[in-house]
Amino acid sequence: MKQQLIFTNNTAETIDTLVGRLAPSSLVVITDDNVDRLVLPQLQADSKALAGAYVIKCRPGDENKNLDALSTVWTELERAGATRSSLVLNIGGGMITDMGGFAAAAYKRGMRFINVPTTLLAAVDASVGGKTGINFNGYKNEVGAFAESEAAIISTVYFKTLSHTELLSGYAEMLKHALLQSREAFASLLDFDIDNSTASGERMLALLQTSVEIKRRIVETDLHEHGLRRALNLGHTVGHAFESYAMRRESPVPHGYAVAWGMVVELVISHLMLDFPTELLHSYADYVRTRYGAFDITCDDYPALLELMAHDKKNRTPDIINFSLLRDCGDVVIDSTVSADNIKAALDIYRDLMGI
Amino acid sequence: MKQQLIFTNNTAETIDTLVGRLAPSSLVVITDDNVDRLVLPQLQADSKALAGAYVIKCRPGDENKNLDALSTVWTELERAGATRSSLVLNIGGGMITDMGGFAAAAYKRGMRFINVPTTLLAAVDASVGGKTGINFNGYKNEVGAFAESEAAIISTVYFKTLSHTELLSGYAEMLKHALLQSREAFASLLDFDIDNSTASGERMLALLQTSVEIKRRIVETDLHEHGLRRALNLGHTVGHAFESYAMRRESPVPHGYAVAWGMVVELVISHLMLDFPTELLHSYADYVRTRYGAFDITCDDYPALLELMAHDKKNRTPDIINFSLLRDCGDVVIDSTVSADNIKAALDIYRDLMGI
Repeated sequence: MKQQLIFTNNTAETIDTLVGRLAPSSLVVITDDNVDRLVLPQLQADSKALAGAYVIKCRPGDENKNLDALSTVWTELERAGATRSSLVLNIGGGMITDMGGFAAAAYKRGMRFINVPTTLLAAVDASVGGKTGINFNGYKNEVGAFAESEAAIISTVYFKTLSHTELLSGYAEMLKHALLQSREAFASLLDFDIDNSTASGERMLALLQTSVEIKRRIVETDLHEHGLRRALNLGHTVGHAFESYAMRRESPVPHGYAVAWGMVVELVISHLMLDFPTELLHSYADYVRTRYGAFDITCDDYPALLELMAHDKKNRTPDIINFSLLRDCGDVVIDSTVSADNIKAALDIYRDLMGI
Repeated sequence: MKQQLIFTNNTAETIDTLVGRLAPSSLVVITDDNVDRLVLPQLQADSKALAGAYVIKCRPGDENKNLDALSTVWTELERAGATRSSLVLNIGGGMITDMGGFAAAAYKRGMRFINVPTTLLAAVDASVGGKTGINFNGYKNEVGAFAESEAAIISTVYFKTLSHTELLSGYAEMLKHALLQSREAFASLLDFDIDNSTASGERMLALLQTSVEIKRRIVETDLHEHGLRRALNLGHTVGHAFESYAMRRESPVPHGYAVAWGMVVELVISHLMLDFPTELLHSYADYVRTRYGAFDITCDDYPALLELMAHDKKNRTPDIINFSLLRDCGDVVIDSTVSADNIKAALDIYRDLMGI
């Protein structure tokens, strides 16, 4: 994997070093209005390279990660006079790194880009591993490219400005990585008191580094998701269904929350089908119930949820629902087909565990 | 290079064999209205796989190779229930293989596709080598991907329906490949009487195979156009400028014609700067003048033409105009910077050679 992962709280200096090394013909920043206001002024003051960069501002929010916004970015890249030898710097959350990455990957059939994630979720997930794209016709990440950034500059300094909800949303992906790694990794995250710790501190940077390295190792073996990378879908088959269903009910939930809840359901399925240990399931479910609350469903919601799961992009054949499941922490089984009855049984147990 | 090149006049059977081997979860055809009317009925009658395929019909013409049409193709792919394991069959000219290839490359971050070129130009150029894309904001192929088809099924049977202009347009790219290869390859194309031969015959299939293999060898060494692949730009820096300028004058010219004329200018530059042999230049210019006529320009047009050349996608720095030039047939020099004065001198000589 060519992508360089840099963990530092000295972003501006790192940007200048990288730009010096990559020697682009010009530099273009893609960001959103919030980051432009909260983060960019200081970065531009500290970084020589950034001071002269053309800045493309997008409207924030996943609902703006669409074809219209992408088309605007391409037009702005032309206005900036960007060539194949220019460099894009995506500074923002997952919406910016996803859309900006795809914009760069397709502009003139591909220019280089660097990700500077400003949220925990983007740092631990979206900015690493080469998945870029936009939502289309209401489907998440329906159109995009596998395209690796030259580098991801990962820092915790921006987490000071994050809400508790945004922090927890990112932490869910860290919990997922830990579950895929080992009991030890999992235990150390359950021990870390995300509610009362300094998210911008050194301990967090160290945990984040461990977490991102787990993802990197998995992605390295399988960039295009033909096999092992599907391990990273743990929690996401059910999580995406919860997320879409919440959207449909017009009370959207953060992505990471949906994944946290989705993992409860998928660990229950893992327990039912592969004997995933009861005590691990319970400690995870307790952690989630305490911190994230519960996603409220009744058995009347099951048919719609199953229909949404069947539409998941990872399903290679429609109507067969594939899961990534665990025998234990660090022992993953990809491409598990699960019957509708087992899914419904797991949703019942999820409701019990969540106390709803 | 994973792309398989199959030269056959038995397309339907080949499609069935390939589909059998690739075992897609479903098959989707992307084509245009003309091909749908002229070519598809017979293919569907002869091919089992095609009989059950979902067909997406686009409006023909390069002016419809745009973001709106692409968006429609993605929506239709969703309607067809296409998954990552489905297979797209692009049946048509370069507009279809370019746009259909990009549609497939980006849909769900990438599904497989096969090209079935129905024009000489698409057979010799667009369907091979992994360049896909659409026009955007008036710039040709401004947005796209490097994505290789699983296979290109190349046949001359469809050339029966081509106009003389379409044949000559494709033949210009064959002349380019021959110039990049050797004096022998070049001579054998000048000997072939494209005006009075059967374009759908065996001799043509053999010449076509030789020509496509030349392109394949060049592309193999450099898929992403960091170096040697730029050899294939011979004639295109000036050719694209002619093409855009003709569009601006509201009397568009076929792509291959623009390339044929562009190569005259670039061989003149090659002669001026690298001593490309006079006799080869003259025999090429004669061939072009006799068959293609001339692109009519005066010195008043030079400033606009130079501005268009400076905007070419291959220029890594704006305002420096890069050419691929020849010392001799088969002896290419990429990334040659040419001064405005030399370009103007070459345009003068081009007008002399063309008798305008």
